[in-house]
Amino acid sequence: MSSSPASDPTLPTAADVEAAARRLAGFAVTTPLLESPSLTARLGGRVLVKAESLQRTGSFKFRGAYNALSQLDAPARRAGVVAYSSGNHAQGVAAAAQLLAMPATIVMPADAPAIKIANTRFYGAEIVLYDRYREAREAIAQRLADERGATLLPPFDDARVIAGQGTVGLELAAQAAALGARLDAAVAPCSGGGLVGGIALALDAASPGTAIYAAEPAEFDDMRRSLAAGERVANDPDARSICDALLAPMPGVLTFAIARRYLAGSVVAGEDDVLQAMAVAFAEFKLVAEPSGAAALAAVLNGALPARGRVIAVVLSGGNVDRDAFAAALARG
Amino acid sequence: MSSSPASDPTLPTAADVEAAARRLAGFAVTTPLLESPSLTARLGGRVLVKAESLQRTGSFKFRGAYNALSQLDAPARRAGVVAYSSGNHAQGVAAAAQLLAMPATIVMPADAPAIKIANTRFYGAEIVLYDRYREAREAIAQRLADERGATLLPPFDDARVIAGQGTVGLELAAQAAALGARLDAAVAPCSGGGLVGGIALALDAASPGTAIYAAEPAEFDDMRRSLAAGERVANDPDARSICDALLAPMPGVLTFAIARRYLAGSVVAGEDDVLQAMAVAFAEFKLVAEPSGAAALAAVLNGALPARGRVIAVVLSGGNVDRDAFAAALARG
Repeated sequence: MSSSPASDPTLPTAADVEAAARRLAGFAVTTPLLESPSLTARLGGRVLVKAESLQRTGSFKFRGAYNALSQLDAPARRAGVVAYSSGNHAQGVAAAAQLLAMPATIVMPADAPAIKIANTRFYGAEIVLYDRYREAREAIAQRLADERGATLLPPFDDARVIAGQGTVGLELAAQAAALGARLDAAVAPCSGGGLVGGIALALDAASPGTAIYAAEPAEFDDMRRSLAAGERVANDPDARSICDALLAPMPGVLTFAIARRYLAGSVVAGEDDVLQAMAVAFAEFKLVAEPSGAAALAAVLNGALPARGRVIAVVLSGGNVDRDAFAAALARG
Repeated sequence: MSSSPASDPTLPTAADVEAAARRLAGFAVTTPLLESPSLTARLGGRVLVKAESLQRTGSFKFRGAYNALSQLDAPARRAGVVAYSSGNHAQGVAAAAQLLAMPATIVMPADAPAIKIANTRFYGAEIVLYDRYREAREAIAQRLADERGATLLPPFDDARVIAGQGTVGLELAAQAAALGARLDAAVAPCSGGGLVGGIALALDAASPGTAIYAAEPAEFDDMRRSLAAGERVANDPDARSICDALLAPMPGVLTFAIARRYLAGSVVAGEDDVLQAMAVAFAEFKLVAEPSGAAALAAVLNGALPARGRVIAVVLSGGNVDRDAFAAALARG
């Protein structure tokens, strides 16, 4: 069915994830893998939460960005990087570029959370805003990159980015082993599929027997439908979600090839599920989750991925949320 | 002036902290030391936050409790433990006792946050409530311990407890070194002084040259006044504070002896400072801080401990806060 990585040299491998981990050492935070005994008791299964909200820039995206940009040679670094992003890839690229003394230009939707725009600007990047529902961000970014001779760094469909995100999987495999936990499953929020794809590469090697799941917003379940169809299918262009980091229109070419080969499936969560998961992350783990960051936890709490009798690693992928939105989630969740 | 540890065999030492770290390995979370580049830029100095809110039970208190109880022999374990606590020591003792299969009885103020009472009960402890402003918790706990032949574990004035809390200092010294940061100062919230005292013991050995400060609520500045007076003095019995974990009436005997010898001083924060620090912990570090847990960060942000041009480790000591109180802090902070 799916093409094997051996037959497609462009797919990243577990070795690429290991190499990314070496590049990231000393730059990325080794985020903790946390357990709540009371949630474990309530669910009848162990849920181990990988707190990528505590990563540099407040989400896992720094990992892929730094892994990619740190491999550029000196002329490419001088020419800079262009990226398009709803906010977390933007901050990850801007922070990585700043560490590497590279100019960065980020194409961001005008309705991205204020905290994400402000933080991206803080890291020294130039911001170009666009209308999420009327303009093609890829085209804007490509034009800017062409004008400047800069590297265009895609948010997920890039082997270096996927390998960088995969270091989340390497870490959680080692941390679960240190807790004496054998992982039955792992689940991570999925937009284009870079994070869950990278984790799948890592765990296939480091934790064989662990089933890997994507978690998607119910209205943006393109990975689930693509896996069912055997080909990449898109989301409804009119769909909306509070999960502002999970709005990619369809899986990437590389990420879908990885997903077909390595994922056990994709599970979905509704908006109320996500809000409740944010409240649970607060109460049980003392973590600040943004809506997108809580999608995988939401898909465990709503039963889409049953926890009873199992050990599940859940990636909480980001914490970049405005205070009003967070307080509203606590009030409703 | 102060008695030296060498002349007082009851004072814990840096070696006791090292031994505690060995006992806690695999049981306590190695909490991350986090940095916010934007806060660093705003303050003109590096603030490294030790996220003990992510510790088992949501505060550092598990460390001291487990270090103490794991040293009891089998008959003492069977007889159980009694403790009095506003909530975090309660949860720490209850969780440690549960891991060691010991019965636990906790004397808690009736006005403790609901989350702390519920969590203590969750860990299997028997709860005895009392009126914080009318009854002497020590007397109630002592009577219970006598009746049951159980061990009374004080919240701070105990060498084993102090050594356990000191493992926070060992960890942050190693983590700061890994970041290439030489610590000019470290500051931790102070109620009875067990946490900051243990950290001082650890850093005196592991990070010489680092100045150690207690941080106290402005209305509960007994350590500051005791250090100035050269003897232990008490807080006004009518004082009140939102910092529900920092209401100890005066420093302990052991903790004050350590403080006189090792602390550079005590800095204070008002209630608005604490609320603002909770909001900063949320926005800059994606951490949930309870009011008491944010006191040290508050004393840096309000300028009591100036950060400009320095590197300061700040202990965020707990995250056990009800959602309404947290949302209110975000709205005001």
